[in-house]
Amino acid sequence: MPKIAVVLSGCGVYDGAEIHEAVLTLLAIDRQGAAYQCFAPNVAQRDVVNHATGQPTAEARNVLVEAARIARGQITDLAQFDAAGFDALVFPGGFGAAKNLCSFAVDGPDCAVEPSVEKAIRAMHQAGKPIGALCIAPAVLARVLGKVEMTIGDDPGTAQGLQKMGAKHRNAGRGEVVVDTAQRIATTPCYMLESSISQIAEGADNVVKALIGMIR
Amino acid sequence: MPKIAVVLSGCGVYDGAEIHEAVLTLLAIDRQGAAYQCFAPNVAQRDVVNHATGQPTAEARNVLVEAARIARGQITDLAQFDAAGFDALVFPGGFGAAKNLCSFAVDGPDCAVEPSVEKAIRAMHQAGKPIGALCIAPAVLARVLGKVEMTIGDDPGTAQGLQKMGAKHRNAGRGEVVVDTAQRIATTPCYMLESSISQIAEGADNVVKALIGMIR
Repeated sequence: MPKIAVVLSGCGVYDGAEIHEAVLTLLAIDRQGAAYQCFAPNVAQRDVVNHATGQPTAEARNVLVEAARIARGQITDLAQFDAAGFDALVFPGGFGAAKNLCSFAVDGPDCAVEPSVEKAIRAMHQAGKPIGALCIAPAVLARVLGKVEMTIGDDPGTAQGLQKMGAKHRNAGRGEVVVDTAQRIATTPCYMLESSISQIAEGADNVVKALIGMIR
Repeated sequence: MPKIAVVLSGCGVYDGAEIHEAVLTLLAIDRQGAAYQCFAPNVAQRDVVNHATGQPTAEARNVLVEAARIARGQITDLAQFDAAGFDALVFPGGFGAAKNLCSFAVDGPDCAVEPSVEKAIRAMHQAGKPIGALCIAPAVLARVLGKVEMTIGDDPGTAQGLQKMGAKHRNAGRGEVVVDTAQRIATTPCYMLESSISQIAEGADNVVKALIGMIR
């Protein structure tokens, strides 16, 4: 049974992992006969946003502790990630991917990447193991790996940001996956495009299918 | 297109709505061709639990504000709920259903029900509209409606609690739904039984199917 590591960036679209994308990635993995383990960096969130109003609050929250809500407590500090134990790695989206896993949301193409995130990506990539990313999460892969073909949907500004980091952007529609077979990277737009939750499920399904297909 | 109101009780299994059950209920509604609107009571959470450790924290959070994370900000105060605008009502589970929607987790069968929750249930029931509940959420329906046939899985202590509130409990397995056709109530155990996320999706699918089938 293939084992897939899922990296969460908090819990909630505006300051953490997008919850639908995260849950539907776990569902896709389970339904396709693979196993999952959730991880998150044990660091402070960049910010906390009141999701009812969209306004930032004065609270402080931890990425791992909040991500544990999505994982029902079954989560491991990403600093303990060992690439040898997994066949693939996947990043659901949400602003957390661009605020907590890297700083793309504030620093753009000059963003920094959280060290445990960068280490996990490099270890899997060097081992020839496939990596997936949904929504805005491809930005993290672009910053770490550079020359990868990927999609974040069709937003020109964001696509330009990825290209400044060395990636090649291809527009994609709802549920569609862009696969860089040489680099073993699969990406899909999810909520970077206005979508129904069924379309998010389709995108997650297709990314997981592509990842499992690339496992050697 | 049928319109289904989804009542969330926060965001996270130990102090709010169980996230997988909530998301997979939304997915089931969308996939079955109905529309959803999320609601939550605008009240303080009973407690905040660190989901990485399982330990309570000193934080204070609001049920509506946290539930908005699952709803991507598209959520309405349950006090504004109008039964005339909806064809069915459904309650995902999680401890929030027994801590924030009612006090069953601490007070057992003598529990109090949050006023906007009780009002919504009574209005839908009196209008002959179907109501669904997952996991521990049937406890809320038992307290408000009393004599209803329902399931919370197979836990004898919890089943006895429901029966003390006037409900008739029937054991059910993973993904199975107990339907009280006279009272128009559909319930399923979800994470009250140790389950895979695919089995949660199956339970949510089946409850939504039963609800849509009971819409007149």
